[in-house]
Amino acid sequence: MENIRGLEWDGEALHFLEQTLLPFEEKVVDTQDWRVIVDAVGRLAIRGAPAIGVAAAFASVLAWREYHGDIAAWKEALSTIRSARPTAVNLHWAVERMEKAAIGLSVEDKGRKLAEEAEAIASEDERMCEEIADAGLSLIKPGDVALTHCNTGALVSYGIGTAIGTLRRAHEGGRIKHVYACEARPLGQGARLTMWEMDKLGIPSTLLCDSAAGRLMQEGKVDLVILGADRIAKNGDTANKIGTFQLAVLADRFDIPFYVAAPSSTFDCSAESGEDIPIEYRDGDEVANYRGRPVTIEFAGTFNPAFDITPGELISAFIREDGVAYPPYRFADS
Amino acid sequence: MENIRGLEWDGEALHFLEQTLLPFEEKVVDTQDWRVIVDAVGRLAIRGAPAIGVAAAFASVLAWREYHGDIAAWKEALSTIRSARPTAVNLHWAVERMEKAAIGLSVEDKGRKLAEEAEAIASEDERMCEEIADAGLSLIKPGDVALTHCNTGALVSYGIGTAIGTLRRAHEGGRIKHVYACEARPLGQGARLTMWEMDKLGIPSTLLCDSAAGRLMQEGKVDLVILGADRIAKNGDTANKIGTFQLAVLADRFDIPFYVAAPSSTFDCSAESGEDIPIEYRDGDEVANYRGRPVTIEFAGTFNPAFDITPGELISAFIREDGVAYPPYRFADS
Repeated sequence: MENIRGLEWDGEALHFLEQTLLPFEEKVVDTQDWRVIVDAVGRLAIRGAPAIGVAAAFASVLAWREYHGDIAAWKEALSTIRSARPTAVNLHWAVERMEKAAIGLSVEDKGRKLAEEAEAIASEDERMCEEIADAGLSLIKPGDVALTHCNTGALVSYGIGTAIGTLRRAHEGGRIKHVYACEARPLGQGARLTMWEMDKLGIPSTLLCDSAAGRLMQEGKVDLVILGADRIAKNGDTANKIGTFQLAVLADRFDIPFYVAAPSSTFDCSAESGEDIPIEYRDGDEVANYRGRPVTIEFAGTFNPAFDITPGELISAFIREDGVAYPPYRFADS
Repeated sequence: MENIRGLEWDGEALHFLEQTLLPFEEKVVDTQDWRVIVDAVGRLAIRGAPAIGVAAAFASVLAWREYHGDIAAWKEALSTIRSARPTAVNLHWAVERMEKAAIGLSVEDKGRKLAEEAEAIASEDERMCEEIADAGLSLIKPGDVALTHCNTGALVSYGIGTAIGTLRRAHEGGRIKHVYACEARPLGQGARLTMWEMDKLGIPSTLLCDSAAGRLMQEGKVDLVILGADRIAKNGDTANKIGTFQLAVLADRFDIPFYVAAPSSTFDCSAESGEDIPIEYRDGDEVANYRGRPVTIEFAGTFNPAFDITPGELISAFIREDGVAYPPYRFADS
């Protein structure tokens, strides 16, 4: 088993795996430029709710260093960082925390404090991943087979990840026998990243097309569904990778438990329900092409929401760093 | 608007569009060799339940001509033709009909009769497509927006097709305003073929990933779902392209009518329910690759059923050449 790190901070620069190239190439980008991080988040080279929160924190530090003390320029950079992607709330959460940490300090103290705060966000994230996995273990029986969607492991966090982190610890403990991974078109994070991570972790895994999830459940092959989230509303409505909602509807039909693993920073209590969560629509080229080749006619019209909303009522439980939450959901700010 | 023909018989040879290359190349294969047809059906170069029935009929004629009068060799060829693919019942239906047509005739008469019978199967198919479209019109309101899956038009029949044939006539009559097409991974028949066909027919269309169908319905963009079938059991349980079942479950959740358009030759009353329909599992390379490029790690395990079973209870109506059938379903041999 190899250790995987999607992000690493050395005090001066952020090193990140260029996820768009995985699993075909393992390239690490080293940067001290916050714009490179914003661009990487927009391109999904850095992705996953916790990871983009951590990346945003380090981007804030790098922007501070670039503008040494020019608050107005720094605030403008923060606003660019915050808008790198619209759906995941961790971006806002991290930038806001960085802003607050710096309030009222001298220019010299601010620089030091910001670096400490970003490092705290990263190490808290690492610890939260372990706590989520601990909490999730209680929901997994020995020999269970899980279906997961998109990618929620070491690449999306500063630690072992959320849903995949839970599966990893459960596999080490002899509970998870096998993991089915949906491809997650358009960008294939399941096919490219989760299958790569399962292989690195030595977890037996099988890839399926997103169209085959219903059949997989129809054949009785799935004991539980577990995946992550990009933003969760007060009532449990959950924005996550496109395709999540239909997995929840199917799991409901077959009475298969459907779990969402996410740190408290992914919960946005300013959103009463899913209706208050903005959905990102991405470029249609992602649908019309795959791995750099066209899959349809030229100039095809496309529908490309990056996320959908799974109603809280379809979610059997949330796995958080502070424990397992069961319905009915009524989350409060922590 | 261009006319499209997936198959054409000239009395001597079968001409077929090599569908695996569409829409990137429009190549017509001309053959007098039944083995080329069997291979094309297996590779999905000729595909769709009605079309593979028609192709099987012409393959039977070509096999007869090759073996001129050697019944044993011919029957062996028929058995090969019949097993080109396991799920679509039209293959069996057409071969059986060809066998019966030849019974009790002299060798010379047999040759003539077989050609006539295959031509009859083809022209009946052409007519049945129009009758299905006629029947289906009653279910479609002016301005309706349809979601379809896989590809069910001129490429899958000797006429205008089944579900897409219905959409085509409904669009001409000002009823269908827009068609959404699911990509239909692994082989992308929606992205490659349906989008190509919509473009040729001048029907406004939008492509979505299979993972986005739930969100599309969530946004209220779909008035009806219409698609084809590969085999339908007595109780209405329907084998169709992988992904169909989950669309039916979603449509049910949103109270969106879910229609299956298919000729009576696709109904198999020897199957009491979906449990009696064999499901074809295809090579995992189809999942692990797309358009000739790998989409995952090497040696990834895959799950690749070509079909799933949609319970009859999720189907709002069947559109057949003899009219519209509503639940409860109890089909009898016609």
